Amino acid sequence: MPKYVYGFAEGSKEMRALLGGKGANIAEMARLGPPIRVPAGFTVTTEACIAYLEGGGTLSGPLESQIDTALAKLEEETGKRLGDPSDPLLVSVRSGARDSMPGMMDTVLNLGLGDEAVVGLAEGTRSDRFAWDSYRRFVQMFGNVVHGIDGMLFEQAIREAKSARGVSLDTELETDDLRLLVARFKHIFEQQTGNEFPREPRDQLTQAVAAVFGSWNGARAIEYRRLNGIPDDWGTAVNVQQMVFGNRGERSGSGVAFSRDEISGGPTPSGDFLLDAQGEDVVSGTRDTAGLDQMAKLLPEAHAQLVEIVRALERHFRDMQDVEFTVEDGTLYMLQTRTAKRPPHAAVRVAVDMVEEGILSREEALSAIDAAKLEVLLHPSFDPDFEFEPLARGVPASPGVAKGKVVFTAERAVEWAARGEDVILVRPFTEADDVAGFDAARGILTSEGGKASHAALVARGMGRPCVCGASALEIDLEEREMRIDGTALAEGDPIAIDGTSGAITVEDVPLVEAEMDRYFRTVLGWSDEFRRLQVRANADRPADAEKARRFGAQGIGLCRTEHMFLDEDRQPKMREMIMAAGEAERRAALAELEPLQQADFEGLFAEMAGLPVTIRLLDPPLHEFLPRVEDLLAAIERRLVTGRESVGRLEGELRRVRELEEVNPMLGTRGCRLGLLFPEIYETQVRAIVAAAVAVRDRQGAAPKLEIMIPLVAFEAELAAMRELVERVAAEAVEGIATRPIAFEVGTMIELPRACLVAERLAEHAGFFSFGTNDLTQTALGFSRDDSEGRFLTEYLRRKIVGRSPFETIDTEGVGELLKMAVERGRRRRPDIGLGICGEHGGDPDSVAFFHSAGLDYVSCSPFRVPIARVAAAQAAIAEARQA
Amino acid sequence: MPKYVYGFAEGSKEMRALLGGKGANIAEMARLGPPIRVPAGFTVTTEACIAYLEGGGTLSGPLESQIDTALAKLEEETGKRLGDPSDPLLVSVRSGARDSMPGMMDTVLNLGLGDEAVVGLAEGTRSDRFAWDSYRRFVQMFGNVVHGIDGMLFEQAIREAKSARGVSLDTELETDDLRLLVARFKHIFEQQTGNEFPREPRDQLTQAVAAVFGSWNGARAIEYRRLNGIPDDWGTAVNVQQMVFGNRGERSGSGVAFSRDEISGGPTPSGDFLLDAQGEDVVSGTRDTAGLDQMAKLLPEAHAQLVEIVRALERHFRDMQDVEFTVEDGTLYMLQTRTAKRPPHAAVRVAVDMVEEGILSREEALSAIDAAKLEVLLHPSFDPDFEFEPLARGVPASPGVAKGKVVFTAERAVEWAARGEDVILVRPFTEADDVAGFDAARGILTSEGGKASHAALVARGMGRPCVCGASALEIDLEEREMRIDGTALAEGDPIAIDGTSGAITVEDVPLVEAEMDRYFRTVLGWSDEFRRLQVRANADRPADAEKARRFGAQGIGLCRTEHMFLDEDRQPKMREMIMAAGEAERRAALAELEPLQQADFEGLFAEMAGLPVTIRLLDPPLHEFLPRVEDLLAAIERRLVTGRESVGRLEGELRRVRELEEVNPMLGTRGCRLGLLFPEIYETQVRAIVAAAVAVRDRQGAAPKLEIMIPLVAFEAELAAMRELVERVAAEAVEGIATRPIAFEVGTMIELPRACLVAERLAEHAGFFSFGTNDLTQTALGFSRDDSEGRFLTEYLRRKIVGRSPFETIDTEGVGELLKMAVERGRRRRPDIGLGICGEHGGDPDSVAFFHSAGLDYVSCSPFRVPIARVAAAQAAIAEARQA
Repeated sequence: MPKYVYGFAEGSKEMRALLGGKGANIAEMARLGPPIRVPAGFTVTTEACIAYLEGGGTLSGPLESQIDTALAKLEEETGKRLGDPSDPLLVSVRSGARDSMPGMMDTVLNLGLGDEAVVGLAEGTRSDRFAWDSYRRFVQMFGNVVHGIDGMLFEQAIREAKSARGVSLDTELETDDLRLLVARFKHIFEQQTGNEFPREPRDQLTQAVAAVFGSWNGARAIEYRRLNGIPDDWGTAVNVQQMVFGNRGERSGSGVAFSRDEISGGPTPSGDFLLDAQGEDVVSGTRDTAGLDQMAKLLPEAHAQLVEIVRALERHFRDMQDVEFTVEDGTLYMLQTRTAKRPPHAAVRVAVDMVEEGILSREEALSAIDAAKLEVLLHPSFDPDFEFEPLARGVPASPGVAKGKVVFTAERAVEWAARGEDVILVRPFTEADDVAGFDAARGILTSEGGKASHAALVARGMGRPCVCGASALEIDLEEREMRIDGTALAEGDPIAIDGTSGAITVEDVPLVEAEMDRYFRTVLGWSDEFRRLQVRANADRPADAEKARRFGAQGIGLCRTEHMFLDEDRQPKMREMIMAAGEAERRAALAELEPLQQADFEGLFAEMAGLPVTIRLLDPPLHEFLPRVEDLLAAIERRLVTGRESVGRLEGELRRVRELEEVNPMLGTRGCRLGLLFPEIYETQVRAIVAAAVAVRDRQGAAPKLEIMIPLVAFEAELAAMRELVERVAAEAVEGIATRPIAFEVGTMIELPRACLVAERLAEHAGFFSFGTNDLTQTALGFSRDDSEGRFLTEYLRRKIVGRSPFETIDTEGVGELLKMAVERGRRRRPDIGLGICGEHGGDPDSVAFFHSAGLDYVSCSPFRVPIARVAAAQAAIAEARQA
Repeated sequence: MPKYVYGFAEGSKEMRALLGGKGANIAEMARLGPPIRVPAGFTVTTEACIAYLEGGGTLSGPLESQIDTALAKLEEETGKRLGDPSDPLLVSVRSGARDSMPGMMDTVLNLGLGDEAVVGLAEGTRSDRFAWDSYRRFVQMFGNVVHGIDGMLFEQAIREAKSARGVSLDTELETDDLRLLVARFKHIFEQQTGNEFPREPRDQLTQAVAAVFGSWNGARAIEYRRLNGIPDDWGTAVNVQQMVFGNRGERSGSGVAFSRDEISGGPTPSGDFLLDAQGEDVVSGTRDTAGLDQMAKLLPEAHAQLVEIVRALERHFRDMQDVEFTVEDGTLYMLQTRTAKRPPHAAVRVAVDMVEEGILSREEALSAIDAAKLEVLLHPSFDPDFEFEPLARGVPASPGVAKGKVVFTAERAVEWAARGEDVILVRPFTEADDVAGFDAARGILTSEGGKASHAALVARGMGRPCVCGASALEIDLEEREMRIDGTALAEGDPIAIDGTSGAITVEDVPLVEAEMDRYFRTVLGWSDEFRRLQVRANADRPADAEKARRFGAQGIGLCRTEHMFLDEDRQPKMREMIMAAGEAERRAALAELEPLQQADFEGLFAEMAGLPVTIRLLDPPLHEFLPRVEDLLAAIERRLVTGRESVGRLEGELRRVRELEEVNPMLGTRGCRLGLLFPEIYETQVRAIVAAAVAVRDRQGAAPKLEIMIPLVAFEAELAAMRELVERVAAEAVEGIATRPIAFEVGTMIELPRACLVAERLAEHAGFFSFGTNDLTQTALGFSRDDSEGRFLTEYLRRKIVGRSPFETIDTEGVGELLKMAVERGRRRRPDIGLGICGEHGGDPDSVAFFHSAGLDYVSCSPFRVPIARVAAAQAAIAEARQA
């Protein structure tokens, strides 16, 4: 028979999988001993949870009997008994999965109370009011959490009780009121569940444990797991622990603390504290908390001990800690400890500080950083020179600036974001149900709660800017309106928040680029020492190139020349080119575009002096530059019906668009197919590139390191023909304007499955391969990106047919396999072939790790993701070295 | 120095690559000796051609000197000299590539004539008129062929000469007229070329050889090579041969002959013969020829010798022969011999007869059949019981019935066919330029020429029905009209031709299915003995299944269930299902479709009793069943402008269509993605299948051999989920209606590159794999079939970036490689996994050979292609055995 229950003394931090993160860490703290004091208790394992869920929802006999044994031991240790009419044992029942899932699972406090035990509690604590308030809380929490009774029913009863008594605060209710409330609550319980409120503490415990287990399969838990890639079969453990009370008067209190500043990452422990309160009051965000500095004044001894303990825990766990504690009548109890979530810039600072303090090696510190979150550190902030009066200020709960349209529900956030809108999710406070909205929103704004509120924790975890507790906000969810100081904002109105300063504004404050602080520069410097992969950027314009270089890009891995045709002054000429009746007309239109494109290239080359620049010749289908058929059709139809205007020109355009229009443009006339059908387009581009290179060489003394890339190659003959075109036109172009040739490599995108299979032949004609993993994913999986995201892919993620979106993290089994095949075959023919990737996966840490292991030379990603890639590449190299 | 020139005595039939087909076979005939008599001559090699083309267009010194040597030898052998004023040597200059290219290359006759030699010729032949007519012909042909002068100029001059003389036939012109014509032709030559007509025979020869070489790169030769997959670097040889004259009076003549009947394949040699004529007159189709039976009456000795020779040649070359011959003053000369093209049913009969005559083994005979052409043998013919009066009759030149719209030019044929029209190409006679039109047309109809005319030869080669020489047709190319016996047909009017009987009609004659004759049945019987691959058919309806079974299909490899939703009575319900507001409404609509689909399946199962039936669950995206956005938009726009009708319903439809519409439907919500999003659709289908299987089992005593196939699988989890659905629903469905379960296999389409890569995991859940090579080609190559064919693929074929359309013949390097990978990986997990293909490649002989070598169990193709696949599979097995 499996061992389903472990006393705290039997566990350790290595037993996370079995005891859950919370249970393992409580056990570890218990093991460390004084000055750490942990209330006694035991953990029911995750295996028991899985057995329960598979067994159809009842606790098995063996489990019940192991709980009995553990309970007996707990009673022995504490010298108290569950349900004892004099000084009874009360326990908390909390979930604790392997990985922390904030707000996801449910907690029941004060379990063990009943009509007899409450008398015992009153005696033991010498406070009738405390005992009955605890009982009232327990019935409410048990009804709500274990049996899913609507919390509003209990709240209404409290409101009625207060109005009957003519008071407005819960604390103004007297013992008799509370006694009546307990009766009222039990009545509600019976009405709602059809059962009597369980008198037996042991029954209460069974129901509570089952409810925690059951909540593993609640909708919001499933949603959280999906977002965070947590397997369904991990299950959750349950921790049963003796209650200690922070609400026992002026020498009591509850709080959460971080071993370092949770916002800045600075070395001073920080946290939230509430005098005379239970832990739930702190975390719920409904009461305004004080900081640890306030605690130092109120309970100096407990504070000093707390600081000593969190520092010790940090050294012991070798990572920044986030603890919950309760001070009961002057005695500090540690209730849990876990790795602290921290905003990206804090993570970076903590990493550097912990290395400098000798706690971690650089490798360890680097590996602990969540590289994916670093992008926000580079995003702009409000221009400090721009004077504006914020509409209001709140608690700066997660740093960064966000601008977007106001939405008041998570559903709306998801919906609007899916159609491409930037939104700010505005709520009085947030709950687990809102998590999907966090993912969709640019930023989060609440009117209640502080830095330890749900909104703040989740926003920091996701790297979303967040302003909390902006109490000047009046949020009217029914009217979908918020009012601040006389200004009313409806859903859809623009707003901006600064999670670093707490400012809220409707002004269009200009943004300034981020400065990289010394910590970030240090981490990136270490990364560059460890990593083997080079990191380039995808950049099409000089401004992007400048940004890329500033963020440490070692070249441009992808310049998409089509973006040069989309600028306002070029589009009409591009359209002329496409509408041209024949080659001659097309050449004339191209001739006008050529100098413009040359100027673009010059800017790019000048910016990237000394570093390689990979230019991809025109890739998208031509109809992307033309008006849509629908718009043309509607216009023609309108003119036909009114009969006022001629439709000749429009019909001409329509004909051409229809000629070019494609059923599956992704698989249509694009990439090198354009170069083969309309060689004059590529010729123009090559001439512009060469002329720009000559001009920059003349000005800067050195020619750019030029790589010309052919897109969408499937056949050897395509690449051979395009290479011939490039080399011929380049030679012709240079002849008229320079005495020395311009050196360049010709290479190919590898973005079709066939290209991977015939990579050996392609290598014959290619100085380099650049994997276009976006298109390779579309073709290998048969997933149109335009059609799958927000459509069937959503369902696939929900049903876990795919673990992550294959457009975010590379599908290693399919696309990755093709890539490795191409690497192997390409190198077989040309051992020194350059190998890189320029799909969006280049900025995704998991994908970067794969590219490292696949032996590529570089990844190329958007400028803002260059630092992510640098850190991720280092982490991959460190992980590899560790394994070796 | 390479040997560029070979005397006929130096060559043999093995030297085709160097001497061309014609040159090698002439040499072989010369080697065989009497009774075969071959005019003396020599061959300039294909290597000389390539050297000429690469060398920039002049004959090299070494080549000229080798020609000099060979000429001297020829003069010695014949006892005549080029340009001799008494009895000069005249030669023909003909091209001859490795593979026969009918009508593609150019011929010059009577070369060697000049103002002096003509006198010698007159003396030698004792006919002034003959000599001057020969001279006239030579100047005309040389100007036209060697220098590209418009033939109309010469024809006009002849017409003027005739009208000046007041006669209407060429033969009525007298020697003086011809003398004047020669002068006039030379004048035309000088005007058009700017040069004097070459007096020197040796100059004439150089120019003629160069012209033959140059014509290798003519547009029509390139087009022919593209259509026939002939490499560009083969080049053509040139044959220089002493002239013999069939136009030397009543004991002379020219003709072509086949060693067997060229239409029926019967054992009697057949052919065309013209008394007192040169070979060009026979082939051009401008004079009405006689058959060999006529020749037997006119020149019995020559005829007897000819029959003896063609039979001997057939035995020697081990294949049916097609010869050209000339009888000069009673003496039979063989000018060339080659493998005879023959219509498919003749090929089949010849194969069987040659085996029965002991000439060939069954393996050899089978291998000689062009399997791709067999399809026409199964196509229907006019219903013999339907009485109709043909509008006219012509020569039955290539068998089979064709119906279509009249077009008068090859361009129009190509254009209309590209947009899906069936067309009949109608011409007075055809030339090489028309070949592309043959490919596009359903059939060919000419008013001039016989069975040996260009139209007849090419049509038979391509397996297109053809009626020739329907002299009652008056074709007015300018008016684009044809008149037959008072009936006028314009371009676009429907017509039908029967190439087996020669009938032409505008009536809509009903068609009857083809009967397989004993020869075809014999060949298919042999095939079944030799082949290892099984052959199934793609069939969606009982009628198709019946056809498939009749043609020898060993099961249904693909039943596309979507076709069952497209019938008129189902489409409204299908639309209802798609427009449904939610699952409940959708289920209601599906419930109505279920019994209809069950009936379809019952029909299919009943028809295929005892053989496996593979049913693919719904595959295409749902919007394919809805109206098009454009149509809806136009209707709404119209109503909005007129303001008369409400647009509410239309807008509802539009919204739904837009919701479903996809940017790249090929890569969108289809296949098993539908099954995952709308499981009720697949559930309905499975219930219908199972109910049908039970009903058929009850009626026929045996259950169908059922295979249920999941389309568009990329991930293991998709297949696992769909398999679970199928098994669960099947078990539920059978419960209510039968006591015994229905056995079936669940398998998957392999039609995405990822599926090939993870085939080992897919095999875990699949009893069989069926390769969907159509979609696999689209995704592996990134070629949308809708967008590439007729667009960039045309250019790709022209530029030889791809040799054949990858949608016709499998791309072995890319798609084939993926397929082999999947076979290997699938078998690794499940050694007995069923492996088949059901893409259109299943009916293409080259692809079938590949599938054989890749180790598949079966191919599945359209019913009409089943016999092709049977023969191709046997050929593959024979070829493999030969290599081993």
